[in-house]
Amino acid sequence: MAGFQAPALARLIDQFNRLPGIGAKSAQRLAYYVLSMPKEDAEAFSKAITDAHSKIHKCKKCCNLTDEELCPICKNPKRDKTTICVVEEPKDVIALEKTQEYSAMYHVLHGVISPLNGIGPDQLNIKELVQRVREDNVTEVIMATNATAEGETTAVYISRLLKPLGVKVTRLAYGIPVGGDLEYADEVTLARALEGRCEL
Amino acid sequence: MAGFQAPALARLIDQFNRLPGIGAKSAQRLAYYVLSMPKEDAEAFSKAITDAHSKIHKCKKCCNLTDEELCPICKNPKRDKTTICVVEEPKDVIALEKTQEYSAMYHVLHGVISPLNGIGPDQLNIKELVQRVREDNVTEVIMATNATAEGETTAVYISRLLKPLGVKVTRLAYGIPVGGDLEYADEVTLARALEGRCEL
Repeated sequence: MAGFQAPALARLIDQFNRLPGIGAKSAQRLAYYVLSMPKEDAEAFSKAITDAHSKIHKCKKCCNLTDEELCPICKNPKRDKTTICVVEEPKDVIALEKTQEYSAMYHVLHGVISPLNGIGPDQLNIKELVQRVREDNVTEVIMATNATAEGETTAVYISRLLKPLGVKVTRLAYGIPVGGDLEYADEVTLARALEGRCEL
Repeated sequence: MAGFQAPALARLIDQFNRLPGIGAKSAQRLAYYVLSMPKEDAEAFSKAITDAHSKIHKCKKCCNLTDEELCPICKNPKRDKTTICVVEEPKDVIALEKTQEYSAMYHVLHGVISPLNGIGPDQLNIKELVQRVREDNVTEVIMATNATAEGETTAVYISRLLKPLGVKVTRLAYGIPVGGDLEYADEVTLARALEGRCEL
């Protein structure tokens, strides 16, 4: 390829190609699209990358990403401070906020316990969570890690740390997704849905 | 969303979301990935965008994208200058180069005649092509526009312009793709494959 492609273009394609889920063809398409953009738009794109990188850091309290000392959720005086929902990633906060059913606090672990990938409890923001539970009159911690083996392990690990502190630790319900066909639900999900059945 | 997401992050997500084929979820995933990159990598990405935009322009001769006056293909003294392959987009040059079966010149139109989108012959690099055929002892022009209605129209339009200049104008062969099942080939392709059959 090097022989017939301008180096600046090849570099841009390569940069897109490094992004997750972007293959060689998509990277090429995106690079040509960037070239076709007006100059100001390309500069805005470029600036958004460096800006986000230099301005965004973890919230001092909940470890969600923010460009201030405390994130908008932690700063919001209207939100219930006695409940903390523990999630793996910042995008999980967005998913939960979209439900508009939750108006308390979050705690973002930025990962899960995963010995295979060399990630132990110390690399996650678990210490900060324990400190919050100790200091902030928290009455309930909702474990909202993913329903994967690693998410489960992390939830169990954290609940064992927190229970001695006298706080209620809960887990998101398992069951069939709304709109889902029983036929296509796997056995484990179906078994959990049966187990967790509630009265109508 | 604005209420609980840092503006710098929201801007980055928005920038990714504007790219073709990148939806809201992918844009979010890519933005978080950029945040997780080491600082130098994010800066290299940002720089690749502005660099490509400021350095890349059309080759003076073939209108392919390059960062020099002439693209590497036009500059290469080993390539046959008497044949020009006319393509719609720079990525078509890459596709043809990958076959390693073509060692002559290209001409990139940067589009096709498309009255519905307001693109007429004057917006394409057709004048430059006619000039090359006139001045450079070209003996054959291969029309390699896409096999779409617009690509066809453009090929026919250009061939009518060039034939009076005494140059041979050819078109890529139609037929069933290599490895393709007859069963799944559409009738038009199959008819064209029959028409273009050759002796074994």
